[in-house]
Amino acid sequence: MIIVIGGGPAGRLGAIHLAQAGAEVQLIEQRKIGGQCLHERCMTVCALNDIARLLEYARTQKDLGILDSVPAVSYPAIQRRVREIQEKLSSVLDAETRQAGVEVVYGAEGRLEGSRVFIDDEEVRADAVLAATGSRAAIPEIPGTDRPGVYTYRTLPAMPDLPRRMVVVGGGVVAAEFAHIFRAFGSEVEIVARHGLLGSLDPKLRSAALRDLAGVGIREETAIASIEGSTRVRSVLLAGGEEIEADAVLLATGLVPRSESLQGLKKGPDGAVIVDSCMRTSAGGVYAAGDVTGPPYLTPAARREGVVAAENILGRPTVMDYTGIPQAMSLRYDYAFATAEADDGGVTLSAPAPAGPGSFWDVARGWAGLAQVRVDPGTGRLIGAAAGVPGASILLSYLGYLMKRGITVDDFDDIVEVHPSTDGVYALARYASGMLKKREE
Amino acid sequence: MIIVIGGGPAGRLGAIHLAQAGAEVQLIEQRKIGGQCLHERCMTVCALNDIARLLEYARTQKDLGILDSVPAVSYPAIQRRVREIQEKLSSVLDAETRQAGVEVVYGAEGRLEGSRVFIDDEEVRADAVLAATGSRAAIPEIPGTDRPGVYTYRTLPAMPDLPRRMVVVGGGVVAAEFAHIFRAFGSEVEIVARHGLLGSLDPKLRSAALRDLAGVGIREETAIASIEGSTRVRSVLLAGGEEIEADAVLLATGLVPRSESLQGLKKGPDGAVIVDSCMRTSAGGVYAAGDVTGPPYLTPAARREGVVAAENILGRPTVMDYTGIPQAMSLRYDYAFATAEADDGGVTLSAPAPAGPGSFWDVARGWAGLAQVRVDPGTGRLIGAAAGVPGASILLSYLGYLMKRGITVDDFDDIVEVHPSTDGVYALARYASGMLKKREE
Repeated sequence: MIIVIGGGPAGRLGAIHLAQAGAEVQLIEQRKIGGQCLHERCMTVCALNDIARLLEYARTQKDLGILDSVPAVSYPAIQRRVREIQEKLSSVLDAETRQAGVEVVYGAEGRLEGSRVFIDDEEVRADAVLAATGSRAAIPEIPGTDRPGVYTYRTLPAMPDLPRRMVVVGGGVVAAEFAHIFRAFGSEVEIVARHGLLGSLDPKLRSAALRDLAGVGIREETAIASIEGSTRVRSVLLAGGEEIEADAVLLATGLVPRSESLQGLKKGPDGAVIVDSCMRTSAGGVYAAGDVTGPPYLTPAARREGVVAAENILGRPTVMDYTGIPQAMSLRYDYAFATAEADDGGVTLSAPAPAGPGSFWDVARGWAGLAQVRVDPGTGRLIGAAAGVPGASILLSYLGYLMKRGITVDDFDDIVEVHPSTDGVYALARYASGMLKKREE
Repeated sequence: MIIVIGGGPAGRLGAIHLAQAGAEVQLIEQRKIGGQCLHERCMTVCALNDIARLLEYARTQKDLGILDSVPAVSYPAIQRRVREIQEKLSSVLDAETRQAGVEVVYGAEGRLEGSRVFIDDEEVRADAVLAATGSRAAIPEIPGTDRPGVYTYRTLPAMPDLPRRMVVVGGGVVAAEFAHIFRAFGSEVEIVARHGLLGSLDPKLRSAALRDLAGVGIREETAIASIEGSTRVRSVLLAGGEEIEADAVLLATGLVPRSESLQGLKKGPDGAVIVDSCMRTSAGGVYAAGDVTGPPYLTPAARREGVVAAENILGRPTVMDYTGIPQAMSLRYDYAFATAEADDGGVTLSAPAPAGPGSFWDVARGWAGLAQVRVDPGTGRLIGAAAGVPGASILLSYLGYLMKRGITVDDFDDIVEVHPSTDGVYALARYASGMLKKREE
């Protein structure tokens, strides 16, 4: 018997992989299958952002005189409906998981003491364990984070209605995504970032993304002294003394691994279970995957880690490979990028993206997104790609793979687009190919 | 000097390719650069469909109680704004073409008599000619097609306002696209197809697409006797005697090559200039590309034909290859498909697509699109793929290429998606890979 603790992307995919290979697998899930990805993070952002985009596009059309009005949004209705759909998707995942042969046990707590496994405090025998207990929101050490009106992605569904003014604390992708969503819904939004906002992004991609945050107040390199209020949050007091009025505060200050129930395993200072490249922990027969092992905190990485752990449990040595994993952010457009293994060097080219589905009407405001490529001028290999356009996420998934396979800019001659397309990477790659050929002549 | 006649996708891309290789090129364009693709077809459909989708999604949200209203659309405003953006894009193309070194001559007519070239009836010397004069709407032989209120894609911008009832004549992709658009805009729409509607699509993809035409009346295998009316169209009289009231009729009955000005070249019965695989016509030094050479009437094919012609003019023997060209249709979702060279055989798998950006909320109606793969069970090669989801067009562009390169379903293990994604082809390919592995064991 193999025990999998946690039914999020890592645990669920690992369990399915094991069961499909013929292993006897029990999946222990405290809440509902699908993890935070389905219930609070990826899918919630997708759901809210679909509505945010709709409202923004409607505003563009209204400004152009094409639509007569912009609808108003009901936040309670969104939350109710999101929940309904998430339940539906969760039951689909449940069925899929069982159908694969996994025994799913709900409502129980799986706990480890080294290699010893306990389910609801009863010790059980297991041939191997996959621990995938996930993560939780990191709460910054600021006085007042426990005030009513202060939320994380996890408690956001309990927010009774749209705030008039929201302060989003954080400087990463999630901070940007929620700021964009609530701004589109009609709230006044202020981002307060201790360091920079989206500072890890390429500068051109970052500037492109910041266009989608027009109307959002942005304070970078800004520390917060406290979150003020009495029965509810009233304001955010900055270290510099300034006070920002707010009737809701969203903490988007990262994640921490949820590893308290996993004792007797080597962990990092943040509690992340330390694993080797085969997802083995320090305890014999115990594997870990997903957010509990620390960053990158991405569903596709978690899924893969789960499968890699499963493969190794099955006795097929497999190593986790993080290269070519595309990263993405959803604002008005998708912002996505991936790099080949050879992460450095090369020549970077950027250009405005062509107008296509989802961006045609934005030509009226003079901007339909950005594309970027990094090319090794010696070999013509595409070693990096980025796009800030509608559909960039799908694009980068395949570009990430093609870069891994060593695609050169000349190879783009054989790619035929559907027209019109927002894919500016294609055009840039072909341009780069022409330039390199010219140089050779 | 090389003369290119026509500034649509074939002529323009051919001219740019020639100029970049150092040739002296004159591009003769009667109207504006960009061709029908920019001014009447691809980009217009993209523009109108972006608004149609917005309205449909708004209706979904209204039904869910999330939005309080659905905006109304102004057709005259759309047409005015589309025109403005098309002018803008046309001037971008103009600049890009000149910058590449092409001399663009507007307002002149290029004409051929075999290898002899005339510009506005004055004979000019040319080392080679690329004829890319495009196509026009085919008008069916039905009495009344010349009545006011009867339109083609070409004359549609002159329609004064949204019709209350529109009849769309035709059974192809363009008929479906316009029917979907005008239905979303609020018109009652009836499609009358002489044969089937979307009959060339795979049956499952077709059923998926027909969901997006819910609310559109569809009559297949139906001949039209005449279009009736006096000063304006009033109805469409079917061969069976039934009369369909209509205040606008849109003829979407295909295209015919526009080759009248190209004399002394071998042509097919429909007027298509006959070319070999190097885009050479029957007249020495004369090449042709794009719609004037007949089907498939697709911008990506036309562009490629233009470049192939240019390569051959430059003395670099190059052959036009139509394999892996993805085809697409834009309704509420994109419907796109591509096949590898090996077009037959294999095992076809279909499944509902996962919910993701653009389709999350559609889970409420129980449908988030379709994915399909065709796999060679012997080799594991992916030999066909289709998807009816948001973003399918971008997806199929890259899948078309990967199939050409011989991708197998096992290779999908190395593709990492951005999550959430609407890409059901990925999931199906991985499923097929698992099944094939199981069979081997």
